[in-house]
Amino acid sequence: MNSFGRKFRVSIFGESHGELIGIVVDGVPAGIALSEADLNADLDRRKAGAKGTTPRKEADEPHIVSGVFNGYTTGAPLTVVFRNTNTRSGDYSNLVTQPRPGHADFVAREKWHGYSDYRGGGHFSGRITLGIVAAGAIAKKILGGTVKIESRILEIGGFTEPADIEAAVQSAVDSQDSLGGIIECTASGVPVGWGEPFFDSVEAVLSHALFSIPAVKGVEFGAGFAAARMRGSQHNDDIVASDGTTRTNNAGGINGGISNGNPVVFRVVVKPTSSIASAQQTFNFADGKVEPLVVRGRHDACIALRVPVVVEAMAAIVLCDFSMISAD
Amino acid sequence: MNSFGRKFRVSIFGESHGELIGIVVDGVPAGIALSEADLNADLDRRKAGAKGTTPRKEADEPHIVSGVFNGYTTGAPLTVVFRNTNTRSGDYSNLVTQPRPGHADFVAREKWHGYSDYRGGGHFSGRITLGIVAAGAIAKKILGGTVKIESRILEIGGFTEPADIEAAVQSAVDSQDSLGGIIECTASGVPVGWGEPFFDSVEAVLSHALFSIPAVKGVEFGAGFAAARMRGSQHNDDIVASDGTTRTNNAGGINGGISNGNPVVFRVVVKPTSSIASAQQTFNFADGKVEPLVVRGRHDACIALRVPVVVEAMAAIVLCDFSMISAD
Amino acid sequence: MNSFGRKFRVSIFGESHGELIGIVVDGVPAGIALSEADLNADLDRRKAGAKGTTPRKEADEPHIVSGVFNGYTTGAPLTVVFRNTNTRSGDYSNLVTQPRPGHADFVAREKWHGYSDYRGGGHFSGRITLGIVAAGAIAKKILGGTVKIESRILEIGGFTEPADIEAAVQSAVDSQDSLGGIIECTASGVPVGWGEPFFDSVEAVLSHALFSIPAVKGVEFGAGFAAARMRGSQHNDDIVASDGTTRTNNAGGINGGISNGNPVVFRVVVKPTSSIASAQQTFNFADGKVEPLVVRGRHDACIALRVPVVVEAMAAIVLCDFSMISAD
Amino acid sequence: MNSFGRKFRVSIFGESHGELIGIVVDGVPAGIALSEADLNADLDRRKAGAKGTTPRKEADEPHIVSGVFNGYTTGAPLTVVFRNTNTRSGDYSNLVTQPRPGHADFVAREKWHGYSDYRGGGHFSGRITLGIVAAGAIAKKILGGTVKIESRILEIGGFTEPADIEAAVQSAVDSQDSLGGIIECTASGVPVGWGEPFFDSVEAVLSHALFSIPAVKGVEFGAGFAAARMRGSQHNDDIVASDGTTRTNNAGGINGGISNGNPVVFRVVVKPTSSIASAQQTFNFADGKVEPLVVRGRHDACIALRVPVVVEAMAAIVLCDFSMISAD
Repeated sequence: MNSFGRKFRVSIFGESHGELIGIVVDGVPAGIALSEADLNADLDRRKAGAKGTTPRKEADEPHIVSGVFNGYTTGAPLTVVFRNTNTRSGDYSNLVTQPRPGHADFVAREKWHGYSDYRGGGHFSGRITLGIVAAGAIAKKILGGTVKIESRILEIGGFTEPADIEAAVQSAVDSQDSLGGIIECTASGVPVGWGEPFFDSVEAVLSHALFSIPAVKGVEFGAGFAAARMRGSQHNDDIVASDGTTRTNNAGGINGGISNGNPVVFRVVVKPTSSIASAQQTFNFADGKVEPLVVRGRHDACIALRVPVVVEAMAAIVLCDFSMISAD
Repeated sequence: MNSFGRKFRVSIFGESHGELIGIVVDGVPAGIALSEADLNADLDRRKAGAKGTTPRKEADEPHIVSGVFNGYTTGAPLTVVFRNTNTRSGDYSNLVTQPRPGHADFVAREKWHGYSDYRGGGHFSGRITLGIVAAGAIAKKILGGTVKIESRILEIGGFTEPADIEAAVQSAVDSQDSLGGIIECTASGVPVGWGEPFFDSVEAVLSHALFSIPAVKGVEFGAGFAAARMRGSQHNDDIVASDGTTRTNNAGGINGGISNGNPVVFRVVVKPTSSIASAQQTFNFADGKVEPLVVRGRHDACIALRVPVVVEAMAAIVLCDFSMISAD
Repeated sequence: MNSFGRKFRVSIFGESHGELIGIVVDGVPAGIALSEADLNADLDRRKAGAKGTTPRKEADEPHIVSGVFNGYTTGAPLTVVFRNTNTRSGDYSNLVTQPRPGHADFVAREKWHGYSDYRGGGHFSGRITLGIVAAGAIAKKILGGTVKIESRILEIGGFTEPADIEAAVQSAVDSQDSLGGIIECTASGVPVGWGEPFFDSVEAVLSHALFSIPAVKGVEFGAGFAAARMRGSQHNDDIVASDGTTRTNNAGGINGGISNGNPVVFRVVVKPTSSIASAQQTFNFADGKVEPLVVRGRHDACIALRVPVVVEAMAAIVLCDFSMISAD
Repeated sequence: MNSFGRKFRVSIFGESHGELIGIVVDGVPAGIALSEADLNADLDRRKAGAKGTTPRKEADEPHIVSGVFNGYTTGAPLTVVFRNTNTRSGDYSNLVTQPRPGHADFVAREKWHGYSDYRGGGHFSGRITLGIVAAGAIAKKILGGTVKIESRILEIGGFTEPADIEAAVQSAVDSQDSLGGIIECTASGVPVGWGEPFFDSVEAVLSHALFSIPAVKGVEFGAGFAAARMRGSQHNDDIVASDGTTRTNNAGGINGGISNGNPVVFRVVVKPTSSIASAQQTFNFADGKVEPLVVRGRHDACIALRVPVVVEAMAAIVLCDFSMISAD
């Protein structure tokens, strides 16, 4: 459902074109200095603006409405809300009858019997991740300096160099198409022993959170899928010190589901944005025919460009929870 | 922790060389004809025996000790236990001081302060998946004929043809090494609408369960990581009928985290077995030096060969839970 | 923590004198006609106004900010917020150093290391139950006509007749003291079979929710504590029809933790309001002495008078969840 | 369902006349010296034997089948099983058609569509609490000397003195009837700050667990139901020291749902055993008539006599979980 976490638990709500979107963050320890300003650096990283991102500009101004008093967290649930302002709901009216390929329009319509808020993807919109980024910023503050989480774009449309990526994105924009990409995230400073057998391995819980990010279709740790073509003698990470430091890190910092003290490394794949302006042949419920659909509205040609900070936030939320669960 | 699921909930226990391993399956509806015989087909598929699998032969005889009465499930928790019989605990004594690279030995030692049962991997052993396979067989019975789940080996050591795979495995055995592989699983018959935003998408919950399987290091749905190099116009699955049937299935049957009526398709990567007989240079706590380790004991040179039925079982457990959660 | 429920799940947030208090209601089915007006009848019942209730008057105006579109629930999380307006935070400044006897001041201070929002009880305020009442009204709509839940005041200060109660309350007000009471709640129309062994009996889950209501110190079902002095031959409810109807209802509609088709009947005791204006001898952290404390501010002399609708709401939330969980 | 707890989590299984009953205890820290002998003292207290208890004598021999290695807990799930030996299933055959008043026979039949194991109450049997007592003994070991939990019989059949109680029980036995009673439990040494707003107050979580015990129909904390007739000036516990010590303990050691450092005190009412040998007029599904039922089999005339140790165990399980959750 819409909440996640055992001790550090987030509950999200809101729709792309509704009044407010937001997140309730339960389990925040008391006494952490916090204001809206602490959230802005990460929220800015998520904003559109670069080539290949949507022309819809939102203020994305966070407003903390509970859980902070006199500049410090209180221990009670902390709620951050964002007002939706720059909405053009008229853009989406035709999607009710002709659902976009690759988008949640069809499943939302069926699951919720036609009552879902279809404007801008409604609750399925990537806009919902604003709350995740806010919660992630809080989680990072709680983790403090010990655990450092960093995401970066590994490839976009098959390219890894900035100049090539920029050209590929421009080409996609020009052809009214979109691109996917791969994000890599590294969490260093994770101590030995986080994660719990059997069902709460670090990989299991992290992947649960990561696959909740819209457009993520794959998650791999360490060598990941490349491990399928390695031999044990190549993949095994020899331990070279009493603190568990390994020579290589094909395991991505996790053995048996438990953090082993080396950096936790994983990658997620972000599919190309499904909303594209070029015509697609898809089913129209209005007349029961497969017909061309041209998606209007303002969309990202490459949503992957904005996802790294969301991936970091999810990692921070999960690792913060593990840090609390593992305290004893 | 060691339980999983919201309405169909499994709790596992046991160690490789302990007395019993088993699983408690809560939420089984009353009135399903069930006996140990119903579990054997899947348990047999998990058994060792083929080239590249361990010479440790276990009876793997399931014993239902609660939840079945007069041949039918009662509605009360159903417990299946397996007695460990063919154990040679002496094989593992040296791993206490020199943990195997790539294995859980080191993290178990640290997390549990030296008290973990190290024999045969203890609670981290792949043997624990016996209970998962039993629960999966029950889940399949509950799902009935509507949802059909099938796993297959997609590649081993980079090879896809049976003859090539067999040769590659033999080569690995000969060189006292091991191989990884990729398993693909397809669940057909999943209706539109399973999965729940935001955190319980089909992908999120399935990946949570799949990453709990020992040795799994990556999970991808539909086109998966290949989506990073596709354009939206290629990746989007055009809808061609009112029931949501799509022309292609790059989404792996899931949009916005919700099943869309097409087959749910995903792949997992299984790393090469970490226990290999060839010498590895790794840390020895006995003398604080990096020294050669030769792993004794009976191990699978390619555990991936035995994983397909475990993947199916996990999928069945998750989809069975979704079927119950989604009933309304 | 601050969320509760398996399929119908509420998450509350806010403090008495913060900006917003509210509730996120997850699991609301799509397609239910709903507006703020539907919440007002129950919210009005919770309002102060009668003799013995606080002179603090709040608009208690609900605002639905997500989960409703075009007048119907969408299936996405539904959020209701209330703005705090009539706050006089100066009233509470002395409680930081001299915690009120019987109140959460001391534990909040200790648990949250001095960072809790102490104004008006902060997150411990009974005001937080506004969200519960809103969620309860939604739950009642979902339950529809089948399950009818009604609470009433059974006794206040030991009196059961309205006139006697009114006089007792006036006497308490006059002496700057407060009164407790007992609320009885009956849910009729609950079908046979809700509740689950072993840990989710109807009694267990209901009591969990009921003891979350501030000031509740006891819960009993059917004959309750009186059962201690009954014989089995008196307490047992003879079944008199094939639908499970019993001659008596000492079990309060629940056997073995499972609803038996008869009305579910329970009582809660509400302790006398702890904030009283007459002087109390209690510890002052400012000087380390036990000294008189006179609690200023605006308080209910008998909070029990306002609790029946909160009890109903909690029962509706729990029974709505059971109705969803039990659907199969 | 059949599992409970956030970090210290128990999952129970089994039926009165099945092969095994047992409990899986997840979250047990590694390194605690433990053997079956550690469980026997509490298991003995639960045994029948005294006047008014069932003549069915069971060995109740615990067997630890996972989670302990070389005499110490390993950190992996700990499983304790008990073999059912002294069963006379023939005794229960007539209850299929004529359910006992006050018992779970009718609801089990309806909920599980006739498939429940009706022998000896099946999964609803008080025998299931054997596992609870075992888990409680483990929880007490984990809590160590800091938290001391003690239950005692407060009254049986309205009597408080041992001689009077014995006479009352004999009288009930003679008249083929049964008696109820009240158990009081005190947990001293609970530090300030356990429990969490809003839904996981100490009262809420304890009552959830306590109402799971078969035959419990009421739970009250501190002054409990008597608070309904007290004034605030009487009920409020004045704080007399900086550690929160109060002059009185009407709150039962809990304010605002949070432990306040004083002893946690609560009482549960146990209804009279529903299985009585004297004839009852109740519905018979065989012929659709209300007819006399004489319950055969071996039953406790006063099950309350055996419940104190079960109450202690539940309290220990809950408080152990709180101790782990609150560690930070």
